[in-house]
Amino acid sequence: MSAQKISHAELRIDDLHGSLSDPLLDTMNFLNEITFRYPEAISFAPGKPYDGFFDVDQVFGHLREYIGHLAAGGDSADRIRDAIFQYGPTAGLIRQLIADSLRVDEGIDVGPESIVVTVGCQEAMFLVLRALIAGPGDVLLVSSPCYVGITGAARLLDIEPTPVAEREDGLDCADLARAIRTERARGRRPRAFYVVPDHSNPTGSTMPMHTRRELLDLARREDILILEDSPYRLVSPAPHLPTLKSLDRDRRVVQLGSYSKTAFPGARVGFAVADQTVADPAGGTAPLAAQLAKIKSMVTVNTSPLSQAVVAGMLLGCRGRVSELNAKAAEYYATAMRSTLRQLERDFPADRRGALGVRWNTPAGGFFLSLRVPFRADNAALARSAEEFGVIWTPMSYFYPGGGGEHGIRLSVSSLSDEEITEGIGRLARFVAAEAEK
Amino acid sequence: MSAQKISHAELRIDDLHGSLSDPLLDTMNFLNEITFRYPEAISFAPGKPYDGFFDVDQVFGHLREYIGHLAAGGDSADRIRDAIFQYGPTAGLIRQLIADSLRVDEGIDVGPESIVVTVGCQEAMFLVLRALIAGPGDVLLVSSPCYVGITGAARLLDIEPTPVAEREDGLDCADLARAIRTERARGRRPRAFYVVPDHSNPTGSTMPMHTRRELLDLARREDILILEDSPYRLVSPAPHLPTLKSLDRDRRVVQLGSYSKTAFPGARVGFAVADQTVADPAGGTAPLAAQLAKIKSMVTVNTSPLSQAVVAGMLLGCRGRVSELNAKAAEYYATAMRSTLRQLERDFPADRRGALGVRWNTPAGGFFLSLRVPFRADNAALARSAEEFGVIWTPMSYFYPGGGGEHGIRLSVSSLSDEEITEGIGRLARFVAAEAEK
Repeated sequence: MSAQKISHAELRIDDLHGSLSDPLLDTMNFLNEITFRYPEAISFAPGKPYDGFFDVDQVFGHLREYIGHLAAGGDSADRIRDAIFQYGPTAGLIRQLIADSLRVDEGIDVGPESIVVTVGCQEAMFLVLRALIAGPGDVLLVSSPCYVGITGAARLLDIEPTPVAEREDGLDCADLARAIRTERARGRRPRAFYVVPDHSNPTGSTMPMHTRRELLDLARREDILILEDSPYRLVSPAPHLPTLKSLDRDRRVVQLGSYSKTAFPGARVGFAVADQTVADPAGGTAPLAAQLAKIKSMVTVNTSPLSQAVVAGMLLGCRGRVSELNAKAAEYYATAMRSTLRQLERDFPADRRGALGVRWNTPAGGFFLSLRVPFRADNAALARSAEEFGVIWTPMSYFYPGGGGEHGIRLSVSSLSDEEITEGIGRLARFVAAEAEK
Repeated sequence: MSAQKISHAELRIDDLHGSLSDPLLDTMNFLNEITFRYPEAISFAPGKPYDGFFDVDQVFGHLREYIGHLAAGGDSADRIRDAIFQYGPTAGLIRQLIADSLRVDEGIDVGPESIVVTVGCQEAMFLVLRALIAGPGDVLLVSSPCYVGITGAARLLDIEPTPVAEREDGLDCADLARAIRTERARGRRPRAFYVVPDHSNPTGSTMPMHTRRELLDLARREDILILEDSPYRLVSPAPHLPTLKSLDRDRRVVQLGSYSKTAFPGARVGFAVADQTVADPAGGTAPLAAQLAKIKSMVTVNTSPLSQAVVAGMLLGCRGRVSELNAKAAEYYATAMRSTLRQLERDFPADRRGALGVRWNTPAGGFFLSLRVPFRADNAALARSAEEFGVIWTPMSYFYPGGGGEHGIRLSVSSLSDEEITEGIGRLARFVAAEAEK
């Protein structure tokens, strides 16, 4: 049998659709490997929620709550069983409950027809990009550094996002406006700008109120949509600035929602709020959400009604007030963040910090903060940090689609105990000192 | 504000990525509308499982079974909680249980590393196409008529499948070989052929043993992969012909699996078995499943561990013998199929049948059978059938990616009672007679 003849049973990676050998993925795999190879290291890498508030009985309780709700609404036992066991509506089973929650909790006033329930926020990103980016002339702009989920979804669709570099203090709308005009001058059509306004992943920074207003003005003026992704918001201590969607008066914002932090990641339930109207040639209109549901039918058919039912029970149990339900979790994360910042202050005293050229931001919530270091914080440095100092972090360069961030470190504080934070920051300080002396 | 300026808040459908206004989707929507508009009509349209075997308590039972299994394996309560609540491995939590089940139930011998757990079979289709079809020169061949899930996934990726028309008695491998050679002659690279070998959707036909062997030989000879999708197999009465994957001696088959019929659709758990090796430039190899998991990380991150846990409990409860677990369901569907066939014989007696030009196939299992009628079985005919005769069916033309099937009707028997079948076939016979007289 010739080599040619067995090429499909024994494939070469360059026979496959591009991006499977993607440098970003390879580099993220490196982080996973390091984590696996040094299980005793303290890891500031994973962006996962703290486990301590989870309890398996919650699943049973939430499910019973939702079943009770359907029964109280007049559904027969057979209908209830079918709602959970059968294929459900592609756009989602619990859209009304999500709409109610968004209204009471976030002041976002949309009907269920403007919502599509997704398999986590990741699928929402994928659907929105698949709908909006119609060809190589269409541009997705991203605030950079940028969450890897959106660049991953873009890559799957062969979309090369245009990064808009954030300043030290976050996004400058003038930079976004410039990027939009540059793309237009190249004959392309800027369609959407992706941003995490609250306690962003990876930097941890929050967009101030005046920038939120400016951004909405700019979206209208420059005719683009804003893709707002804000998973850390409701697990951060109040007061919260209003979401972009709640400030949106002319349907410029598509909100990408997640219950991975407010309920639990294993539910894999997220959503998109997409109330933009789409006109068809026959003169009919439908919300963009309905178009997203059509795409969804070809990706996952629908989001597990079982998972949706569990999230619904959670929403019912708190009367939609997800922020109140998560007040304890928000306080937990805020405490972890304060501990981390206090420990950084201790282990990098002001004078040494200046001499070393180390600095960091001071988020009031969220899972992440970012640290500037005086050396290349690349995979090789990460390997030394894990092996010699027993501490793991994420290189910021992972989050720059256009390159950059070589001297940045992302620290996640969400899943570490106070002792781990104290010890971990100590190790980090020793590692940074050792690197700086090289 | 000029019209141009509000174009993104008020989109036109042709501003969006193609296929949102897809004729197939529009036509499927028509079927949904008809179903909604005539709730009293008897519907042979939905391909959903019978509800009667579902019970909400099963969810609790399965979940407890899996938790007990993890505990018996030595996992702490904290680890168990995290397995269900946290993000899990992208490739899946329950791959070993699936591998065990495939071994005892289907004689398929693959390790867990060759499996990726997906959000239903639909996501498995999407991942496989995304990996294998690297550009417009790569060809996906599909047996035609064809399940709309695969054509939908293809459409999302801007892939135009090449249909291989089935004969009256199913696939002829010579037709596939010819299609492959034609594509090669056009300078394209045939990569994979999609087929539902057992009780196919939409026709209900099953591929005979000699064709299975021929198809595997052809795959090796012509250097293509086979995408085997067989959701109705284990809910059909034994004996079953062996799956293509179990006959596969040189990794020519990627099996697309579903628990939507054997467990329940609301779990949204499927999988792909992809044990083909993929070589990277550094000389390493990994199973194709690992590449599929990379893509999955950008679509849905992972399949709900909660849903996986419920399916795992089901697998544990039957010691992997899904076919035995579904023996009662299989008998139920087989009875419904026999009733339908008997009723067709009664309502279209042999002489009238010949005069009318009506004929049908006689599947021994599965959800579907197909009927040839002497008129155009299009949406207009469907509307007349629903409105005037109170019976709904699916036009076969929906399932022909290259056009065709204008005189075909798909009947699904899976979710109707005996009385509904009797009455429904009677109505269908009156409708067919009325159409034939026009």
